[in-house]
Amino acid sequence: MLIVPFDTHHSLVKAAYQFRGYTPAESEDAARFCEMTARHGIRTHNALKALHLDDHFGSRAGGCVPGARIDKLPSKFPASEVWNANRKLGPSVGFAAMERCITLADEYGIAQISVDNAFHYLWGGGYVLDAAQRGYIAYTNCTAALAEVVPYGGKFPTLGTNPHSWGFPTTGATGYPIVVDWATSTMAMGRVQQFKREGKSLPPDVAVDAEGKSTTDPNTVTALLPFGQHKGYGLALINELYSAFTGGSLPTLRSREIPEGEKRTPTFYFQVIHPDAISSGAFAAGRDRDANVKAVIDDVLGHGNDACLLPGQIEAAGAARTEKAGGLLFTEVEIREFNEIASECGHAPIELTSLTEFEEEA
Amino acid sequence: MLIVPFDTHHSLVKAAYQFRGYTPAESEDAARFCEMTARHGIRTHNALKALHLDDHFGSRAGGCVPGARIDKLPSKFPASEVWNANRKLGPSVGFAAMERCITLADEYGIAQISVDNAFHYLWGGGYVLDAAQRGYIAYTNCTAALAEVVPYGGKFPTLGTNPHSWGFPTTGATGYPIVVDWATSTMAMGRVQQFKREGKSLPPDVAVDAEGKSTTDPNTVTALLPFGQHKGYGLALINELYSAFTGGSLPTLRSREIPEGEKRTPTFYFQVIHPDAISSGAFAAGRDRDANVKAVIDDVLGHGNDACLLPGQIEAAGAARTEKAGGLLFTEVEIREFNEIASECGHAPIELTSLTEFEEEA
Repeated sequence: MLIVPFDTHHSLVKAAYQFRGYTPAESEDAARFCEMTARHGIRTHNALKALHLDDHFGSRAGGCVPGARIDKLPSKFPASEVWNANRKLGPSVGFAAMERCITLADEYGIAQISVDNAFHYLWGGGYVLDAAQRGYIAYTNCTAALAEVVPYGGKFPTLGTNPHSWGFPTTGATGYPIVVDWATSTMAMGRVQQFKREGKSLPPDVAVDAEGKSTTDPNTVTALLPFGQHKGYGLALINELYSAFTGGSLPTLRSREIPEGEKRTPTFYFQVIHPDAISSGAFAAGRDRDANVKAVIDDVLGHGNDACLLPGQIEAAGAARTEKAGGLLFTEVEIREFNEIASECGHAPIELTSLTEFEEEA
Repeated sequence: MLIVPFDTHHSLVKAAYQFRGYTPAESEDAARFCEMTARHGIRTHNALKALHLDDHFGSRAGGCVPGARIDKLPSKFPASEVWNANRKLGPSVGFAAMERCITLADEYGIAQISVDNAFHYLWGGGYVLDAAQRGYIAYTNCTAALAEVVPYGGKFPTLGTNPHSWGFPTTGATGYPIVVDWATSTMAMGRVQQFKREGKSLPPDVAVDAEGKSTTDPNTVTALLPFGQHKGYGLALINELYSAFTGGSLPTLRSREIPEGEKRTPTFYFQVIHPDAISSGAFAAGRDRDANVKAVIDDVLGHGNDACLLPGQIEAAGAARTEKAGGLLFTEVEIREFNEIASECGHAPIELTSLTEFEEEA
């Protein structure tokens, strides 16, 4: 992996967004969010992926509106807000919603913001990680751009890959926030396509063919299966229900051609809990809160379970590598893609010859 | 199945709890909760199971204290409360917490109550079902009585079967509340023991042996596996984290002998959302909220997916059977067990000869 200076990445990503008509503030949010994904080794949601999404679903496809303003709808509930995002850029909405949830949670102990007419926020884990680093328990879910997942027992994809993300302020206990963050399909469609390109068979119970039968042949895959049978199905359905109560419409219409009067936008849901608001303060054996959380985690990973990972540990290791490298890590292929984007938006390219290789420890 | 009149069941269960020293109010809560489980066909958590739990972990084992009072701890967060349950009977705490959460959610849009020093609340699905029937989105999790589940990649059980329960007020859309409710192990230990008694092999990836290796031989099972690999593990860990922040201690100490100064009690977490507090009101195609929720669900179950069940549908069918029967349905074996309990607490037995058989439709 090659080391790209933070400033170079930031400047290029910001320029690419501004070139697409996004405001300086939106472009700044996009650059900041993409830096966060790259920093934590989330290669599936780096700036290249974000810009691809903008091509296929975003500003170049009518799903996202540069410069859109968020309307905060009237509400009689002081710990809750409902926003109409008017298809504003996802990271700008996500950062702002989490910020506002934190302010409200400071006052009420718990707070929520639901967002109608949203556009892809890229990586839910990023928002809860950020909140957890600042000391809060945070949760988000959203409806995914496309209906790609078959409900348990069904044949046809009518659910999004609908992710859930939870972050916990465990830095004092484990050195980094625990982040539980995944899609409710067993595998992403992109990963299935990778199996196809590599001519490999899929694991069982990942995907179905046109008949709705489970298949391990990636060439016959038409849709994905939820993880954990009826349990993952229930988790995917939860996002559709939050969406349906918020203002979202039929899952199979999302990001598609729609009849007049219909909606095709995803929704977001954000929630923040102040950890003091759920604490009895009565931790055993004279421990304080962080020591108690550490004791619980040490117990889970003790008793011969030292090979287990904690959710968020891989991302924390990614951030440590980035820290050590002093810049963001990308492959040469990725940097060439960045340079196509640079060329398109008139930004200086990343000089490949100027970059140094990151030396992994043996 | 035989039809037991509601009054007979209520009177007997209440008497059994009062015989154990529970107050009339607690015994009333227990009878009401057990009626709810029996009504919805939750046979694993009926009154017989509740009284077994009271024997093994409850008032006869020091885990539950009849007549205990709940202390509401001081809090500066108006939408949040923290309760010390002082090991009060689970259903009494659960009903009261959900009631209070509803009152707070009416004011703030969202509310939470965490409960330290709790005792088994039997079936999380019951509390969220009750709240959903009253029009609210509700969620609860708890730490299970015993550490029976091995974290993903580990060998030794250090996690509870830690359930999650979500309820949605979908009665106007589907005729009953959608309730997503399950343990984070693939299978319950009681079910594994049933396979053992019946001499059957387990499905793969359900349980492990003493070496931490996945086994299908129920005779060698020492612990359970989480469902969905790392995803179910993350979900089980979430409950331990809520617990650790609330005041719960090491999972492997729960319901066990403990050193001086330690804690062995589970914790509960309750959350209620007022659905108006997340609604933009801008539903597509002129639909109102219930019509929108119905349209989304019809879309999920459409397109050839009519064989799919909704979470909560089986429980709703159970309630419909109960309604049709005009009483609670139990097997003759179960009624004989009830009569042992009746005999112990001096209550009149259920006269088997007086009961009618429930005629299932063909």
